[in-house]
Amino acid sequence: MTRNLVTDATRIGADIDALSGLTDPGRPYTRRAFTPMFLEGRNWLTQRFEAAGLSTRLDAAGNLIGTRRGRQPGSGTIMLGSHSDTVPDGGRYDGIAGVIAGLEVARALDEQGITLEHDLEIVDFLAEEVSIFGVSCVGSRGLAGVRPDEWLTREAGSLTLAEGIEQVGGNPASAEDRSDIKAFLELHIEQGPVLDNQQFDVGVVTAIAGITRVEIIVEGRADHAGTTPMGARQDALTAASWMVLAVERFATELASGDAHFAATVGEFSMEPNAANVVPARVRMLIDARAERREDMVRFLGELEAGVAGIAEQAGVTASEPKIISDNMPTPCDAELLDILDEASEHVGARHRRMASGAGHDTAWMARLTRAAMIFVPCLGGRSHTPDESATNEDIAMGAAVLLEAVKRLDTR
Amino acid sequence: MTRNLVTDATRIGADIDALSGLTDPGRPYTRRAFTPMFLEGRNWLTQRFEAAGLSTRLDAAGNLIGTRRGRQPGSGTIMLGSHSDTVPDGGRYDGIAGVIAGLEVARALDEQGITLEHDLEIVDFLAEEVSIFGVSCVGSRGLAGVRPDEWLTREAGSLTLAEGIEQVGGNPASAEDRSDIKAFLELHIEQGPVLDNQQFDVGVVTAIAGITRVEIIVEGRADHAGTTPMGARQDALTAASWMVLAVERFATELASGDAHFAATVGEFSMEPNAANVVPARVRMLIDARAERREDMVRFLGELEAGVAGIAEQAGVTASEPKIISDNMPTPCDAELLDILDEASEHVGARHRRMASGAGHDTAWMARLTRAAMIFVPCLGGRSHTPDESATNEDIAMGAAVLLEAVKRLDTR
Ligand SMILES: NC(=O)NCCC(=O)O
Ligand SMILES: NC(=O)NCCC(=O)O
Repeated sequence: MTRNLVTDATRIGADIDALSGLTDPGRPYTRRAFTPMFLEGRNWLTQRFEAAGLSTRLDAAGNLIGTRRGRQPGSGTIMLGSHSDTVPDGGRYDGIAGVIAGLEVARALDEQGITLEHDLEIVDFLAEEVSIFGVSCVGSRGLAGVRPDEWLTREAGSLTLAEGIEQVGGNPASAEDRSDIKAFLELHIEQGPVLDNQQFDVGVVTAIAGITRVEIIVEGRADHAGTTPMGARQDALTAASWMVLAVERFATELASGDAHFAATVGEFSMEPNAANVVPARVRMLIDARAERREDMVRFLGELEAGVAGIAEQAGVTASEPKIISDNMPTPCDAELLDILDEASEHVGARHRRMASGAGHDTAWMARLTRAAMIFVPCLGGRSHTPDESATNEDIAMGAAVLLEAVKRLDTR
Repeated sequence: MTRNLVTDATRIGADIDALSGLTDPGRPYTRRAFTPMFLEGRNWLTQRFEAAGLSTRLDAAGNLIGTRRGRQPGSGTIMLGSHSDTVPDGGRYDGIAGVIAGLEVARALDEQGITLEHDLEIVDFLAEEVSIFGVSCVGSRGLAGVRPDEWLTREAGSLTLAEGIEQVGGNPASAEDRSDIKAFLELHIEQGPVLDNQQFDVGVVTAIAGITRVEIIVEGRADHAGTTPMGARQDALTAASWMVLAVERFATELASGDAHFAATVGEFSMEPNAANVVPARVRMLIDARAERREDMVRFLGELEAGVAGIAEQAGVTASEPKIISDNMPTPCDAELLDILDEASEHVGARHRRMASGAGHDTAWMARLTRAAMIFVPCLGGRSHTPDESATNEDIAMGAAVLLEAVKRLDTR
């Protein structure tokens, strides 16, 4: 569908083609942070930023920032952006769409002859995806001042994260005062099927779900699979299967409410994993996402009781669910949500409010400043795969929403 | 408990200690076929056989045979034995107990001044356990003339199985006519908990269960674990969990009859096995054991229908159960079973009939001649582990049953 927008879908599409074309040889689409290909992408972005009249710099956290000066220096900064790094074998839109949408906002402002009161910054955050150092959102956490110090000594090959940030052009030893940022907005593909299925143009993200990872170890007994009577077994796999189904049942129940909830057994392995031996041990890692903390608390309680009950019933032992990581849900800023709704109305975008089940840089920026984000649809909700697909028109529509929101923010 | 037997528990214990002491350095109890340690064990056995007055030879299939000549050359051979090879990190009794029990029968006959009518052979079969070549029961299949020719070209490192058999002293190119063997008997630890739990001395094995291995592949869809609503998933792991439980349910039902049945999902792996990705693919390998072929046929039918129904319900696809290997049950010889019952009565052994859920050399010898076997208890049914435990007294009791059975066979 072509719409009458101030943002340009063709120009957006050309930029996404060019940037996503910078991929590790023979491996679409792979541009992992800290790799040579990532730096090529950064060089290309720097040139595009400058061609659009933005002055560029790398901040201490290793983020690439393009600045469009406002009329009133010192009145504060409005920041837009996302990330240009990908997962291995990732897609063409995850992160990129938001960086290019930010750039497009700057270009459209130029074309409309608008100078804002505030400075506008377009940011490409460093290493939003799980990086070669095993951690994610390195740049947004760094900018927000919440990057754990102990991360800096993490190693990938012979490189430490501190050295990696330096190579990218950052300065891991120093921290910038960014209290000038009065609002942050991000555009991202949804990475889920809701907008695509329900034919919305834009999702106004109410909150970024908390992510809790929980490990469970089930210990049964390795016995001869041929000789051990069915009633005399301590089979870790059959017990673990009940637990997998309990996770799905608890999560489905919680998801039937009006807030986002999901839980997945994403890692599952067993020992000895030999054809004729009764499974002795299973390790499971559960990934749970909750828009509301109380749902996560309820899930963890049900999980603990469920696992204990199943283990007892099955005659195996199970570790108490061990929390490996636990991030709180991040509500987006209420005033920004209203502005994004109004902006969507203004540009004629069919919009709905929804939570993000995925983690995003916005969650970390919300520690520093007012922050919010919008989703644009992606085909079938597929992401983190070369099959990832979104339309340039939808991204242009989202960029137009951002532009309108920036204009409204600028006057408040 | 000490009993008044013609077999000698102390002598049996000393032999088991000596042979099981020959183990790969720092790795009790590991004496895999074709390894240097296996050959050390064979040398030791050869000396023990000869010290007991047996003349020794290696047959074409690579089995070590000790012969005690009978009064009537050419009247046929009675064979006793088992295997001296172990699994990696195996036990002290699996296989060894049967070889030493055979040797003890020969010694006890000497001490009683008995010369049989028939030749008596004590055999140590080559490579009963899954060997470095990935196949098992190499020696008993070879002796019985049912070793697949294509096995000979299998490789382990730079060695072929044919070369391995030659190194052991066999001649893989030739086949011996062993129609002289009129009966084969094996003693083995049960490798299951039945005799130990029910306090029997001896299990008279009615049949060796058929072993069928079935592979199932479940294909779902890799989606983002955070964003994909619970109702919009094609989760291969949750579907596979239902299948694991169906296997257990079908097997438990079949096992509630009067014939042995067991089924186990022994191998289970999933992809991509990443914390925040909905599981896309699961591979399962089912090991099923049936004393009665009709039970296996019923199980395979229930499995096929069950898997298809679960896949449809869960919105995933599942391959039809693929039969990877399929061995028929082997009934033991009815007359030998009666003789073993009578012999058990004669020596005062508390005995019961039972099927073997595990595969044994006896199943292959049954292709050649009348064959049967007895079990002795092992602690808690544990086997294929250094914890494997059996008493010298129980093995001596079993050997006494074999001796009495041999005497009875000799007169028929
Ligand atoms: N947006 C996104 O894919 N984040 C990765 C972290 C996660 O949500 O699992
Ligand atoms: N006796 C024994 O452990 N055989 C190994 C093959 C099997 O039954 O799984």
